[in-house]
Amino acid sequence: MANIRHALNVKREDDFAKWYQEVISAADLAEESGVRGCMVIKPWGYGIWERVQRLMDDRIKAAGIANAYFPLFIPLANFEREADHVDGFAKEMAVVTHHRLIADGKGGLIPDPEAKLEEPLVVRPTSETIIGDAMARWIQSWRDLPLMLNQWANVVRWEMRTRMFLRTSEFLWQEGHTAHATREEAVEETHRALEMYRACVEEDLAMPVIAGEKPENERFPGADETWSIEAMMQDGKALQAGTSHYLGTSFASAAGIQYQDKEGTQQLCHTTSWGTSTRMIGGVVMTHGDDDGLRVPPRIAPHQIIILPMLREKPEDEVVLAYCEEVRAALASQWSMGEPVRVLLDKTPGKAAAKRWSWVRKGAPVIVEVGPRDMDEGKVAVLRRDALWNMDNGKPAMAFTPKGEFIDGAAALLEDIQNSLFTKARERRDANITRGLTQWGEVQDFFKSNGKYPGWVEVEWAKPTGAALEKVVEQLKAEKLTLRNVPRDADAGDGICIFTGEPAVERVLVARAY
Amino acid sequence: MANIRHALNVKREDDFAKWYQEVISAADLAEESGVRGCMVIKPWGYGIWERVQRLMDDRIKAAGIANAYFPLFIPLANFEREADHVDGFAKEMAVVTHHRLIADGKGGLIPDPEAKLEEPLVVRPTSETIIGDAMARWIQSWRDLPLMLNQWANVVRWEMRTRMFLRTSEFLWQEGHTAHATREEAVEETHRALEMYRACVEEDLAMPVIAGEKPENERFPGADETWSIEAMMQDGKALQAGTSHYLGTSFASAAGIQYQDKEGTQQLCHTTSWGTSTRMIGGVVMTHGDDDGLRVPPRIAPHQIIILPMLREKPEDEVVLAYCEEVRAALASQWSMGEPVRVLLDKTPGKAAAKRWSWVRKGAPVIVEVGPRDMDEGKVAVLRRDALWNMDNGKPAMAFTPKGEFIDGAAALLEDIQNSLFTKARERRDANITRGLTQWGEVQDFFKSNGKYPGWVEVEWAKPTGAALEKVVEQLKAEKLTLRNVPRDADAGDGICIFTGEPAVERVLVARAY
Repeated sequence: MANIRHALNVKREDDFAKWYQEVISAADLAEESGVRGCMVIKPWGYGIWERVQRLMDDRIKAAGIANAYFPLFIPLANFEREADHVDGFAKEMAVVTHHRLIADGKGGLIPDPEAKLEEPLVVRPTSETIIGDAMARWIQSWRDLPLMLNQWANVVRWEMRTRMFLRTSEFLWQEGHTAHATREEAVEETHRALEMYRACVEEDLAMPVIAGEKPENERFPGADETWSIEAMMQDGKALQAGTSHYLGTSFASAAGIQYQDKEGTQQLCHTTSWGTSTRMIGGVVMTHGDDDGLRVPPRIAPHQIIILPMLREKPEDEVVLAYCEEVRAALASQWSMGEPVRVLLDKTPGKAAAKRWSWVRKGAPVIVEVGPRDMDEGKVAVLRRDALWNMDNGKPAMAFTPKGEFIDGAAALLEDIQNSLFTKARERRDANITRGLTQWGEVQDFFKSNGKYPGWVEVEWAKPTGAALEKVVEQLKAEKLTLRNVPRDADAGDGICIFTGEPAVERVLVARAY
Repeated sequence: MANIRHALNVKREDDFAKWYQEVISAADLAEESGVRGCMVIKPWGYGIWERVQRLMDDRIKAAGIANAYFPLFIPLANFEREADHVDGFAKEMAVVTHHRLIADGKGGLIPDPEAKLEEPLVVRPTSETIIGDAMARWIQSWRDLPLMLNQWANVVRWEMRTRMFLRTSEFLWQEGHTAHATREEAVEETHRALEMYRACVEEDLAMPVIAGEKPENERFPGADETWSIEAMMQDGKALQAGTSHYLGTSFASAAGIQYQDKEGTQQLCHTTSWGTSTRMIGGVVMTHGDDDGLRVPPRIAPHQIIILPMLREKPEDEVVLAYCEEVRAALASQWSMGEPVRVLLDKTPGKAAAKRWSWVRKGAPVIVEVGPRDMDEGKVAVLRRDALWNMDNGKPAMAFTPKGEFIDGAAALLEDIQNSLFTKARERRDANITRGLTQWGEVQDFFKSNGKYPGWVEVEWAKPTGAALEKVVEQLKAEKLTLRNVPRDADAGDGICIFTGEPAVERVLVARAY
């Protein structure tokens, strides 16, 4: 294999954490803002988020769920009444205590002591309690059910150690909140949302996930059941990419979400909530990034095809630009995967080679270069970002293709890249889940002997609860391991619990995690 | 004219402010949240906002401007360095001082004294200073210009007296921020944004506006020029529906936004900012609402056509539903005004009459009712929300129309409603701008003698500045009047300044305002 000069300075296998930071920067996704724990999402990163939003929102609306908007600020009293919930969040909330600034007399500003709030306000870490208040007002009878709402919003959870997209004090997300007449309907909605997440993340983000139930210790504060989708990053760690909670009647009880049933009796509603966030973008980076930067799956790429005219500040530039514009217009009128093709003719100043590598690092799925010679031959030079290198000569795998042929095949090409990214990620994931370990010592050995990128193990367990589960969690923590979820598609356990030696009832995924 | 029983309890002419609140509630747009100054935007209201967002965002993207996202929290230091700017905002900002809550030992929660921030953070009232920091990092050379960004976000300006959509402590908006090499380019962008706002608000929201420059006293804190679009509400008051600012080099100077020009010299950038907000929804209510509720212009209606099956809990219901579904599918496959028709078959439980009036109050542009008899005759009963009443008999003006004829004409019908709403609002606006007053006493008399809904006057003035302008503002304030803007399309002044008696240089709009 030829020696390749990759576009990044750090390789995944050398230092995955440092590589991740370099991709975020080299692909122009985001940067530190100077405000503790908050990032700036730059246009290319935000463009990807907008695509994810649009595709997820289409799925949410298709399920008959309406978007609404609730206040950023939540009174303390809302948290006080939900004991389990506040225990889960109390340690990490931003608190507004004043509503005015005044000059400090030394050229600076301070919170005005005269403008102290009687009751401090919390910047929402999640909106169960404030949306619960609204549900209690809006629901009177069975006719008002189900009530299904979604909100796109920013939320704040104060974080001491932050990592861009994966753990930031402020992040962007959607939170679904629904109220139902019965447990069955609420559980069904919990699963519908989970399946919606699986479909969106696998089909749109090309990120394979395993859907399953979180063990008791990993439940959302106050929830009866928490389900998740878990994705395997290229370092073998797990990333929780979305969660769906069946909240039972506990939030309904705290907020007074009741309905009169057909017989005239007051009943508590069963509620759910479910969320996905900008964290998914971090997952896309660690699933599809390579040593040349990011590779954006076409469905979520703000621009799917970049056309780079090779200009020389000569009169013939005009002709090349006209040729490029013709290709652009022909592509823009096509549809791929149910949407118009998104194509950009990049006319910004700069050398074509520098621009090519900028788009390689950003991960645009297809880069098309057009110079005077290509034009004379009626061709374009096509670079597939997911198959960047010619392994024989170590050079970019440019395919010089007749213009018409490229245009006719562009929609299928994008679909092929989308599928290929998913298939390769799934193969890697599947190859890195180990089954059949039956002794705790084997699990310990496995993670010790498999170096930096060990993958996951799926083990049988007895589903311990309470103190017994705490013991298991401690045992795992000593090896830097966590319980991920109990895959919904896995067989039931028929052996022995690897932790307790009791008869196993199900299988659970064990992994290092973000 | 027959006696009409309107759907609202309050008429516009009886109490406009109370009528406004009733529309907000009866049309299910929004409600008080229980959190001071913050509202809950309900699904129908938020759906309208999503439509406005989508249409405005398309226009922003078409201008080559990229969306990005900047932190919710802004350090105090950012405000301290921009003296003019902070004077404009310092009185009304939410301040975060702690990052953790702890139990108070009495069952409640308090901000943890151990978790006091070293430097308080301000919840953004607008993002000039934090985006300015990013621009300073991102811009090095003339090649990086223009840098054109937009952000969709929530912002907070603490308000003592709030009114839904018009003045709330938290509101949703978009804020555009651009940096340019020259004054000329920045001023051009200021006008491009203003014209974009005019086009969106007039074409999409069907709300006629007058675009012009704000006088000095109404400028954005720190701006060199502030331009606005002003709409006339049905009570004759003005609503500022969007602003566009040329910021000169003052923000660039404070934040260090510099570039190296082609000669290698460091230059300050010229910056702009421009914004529109959920306030526009309040404008839609006060422009298009009537005594039966809201009328939503079709372009921004979440559902444009509502189909109401008249069901009787009998076996024939199935046939009626199938007939309705056929109509729905035929409509959904059509396009109107460049987009697929948005049609809802409303199968929720409840009586058809109650559902009709609910959609009338919400302002769905077209309501279609289908009962067994209509079906047997191959017809549908069509109600145009903008022509609701048969003035002869005082009943809803149902048009019984052959199904095929209705379907074939639906796209044109929606366009006609859109145009009709705009035309009527513009006629009303134009009829209520009074010109030709040349004495201050005439202006006073005009507003005294024209009752509650006097409209606007356009007067000639000498464009005073500084103390002379302050005097004019005080003079107006005594009559509860304000200067709105100097219309960009108005003739120059050639008479005498109505305030100072000096030779006039331009014309300015005077009005009561929200």
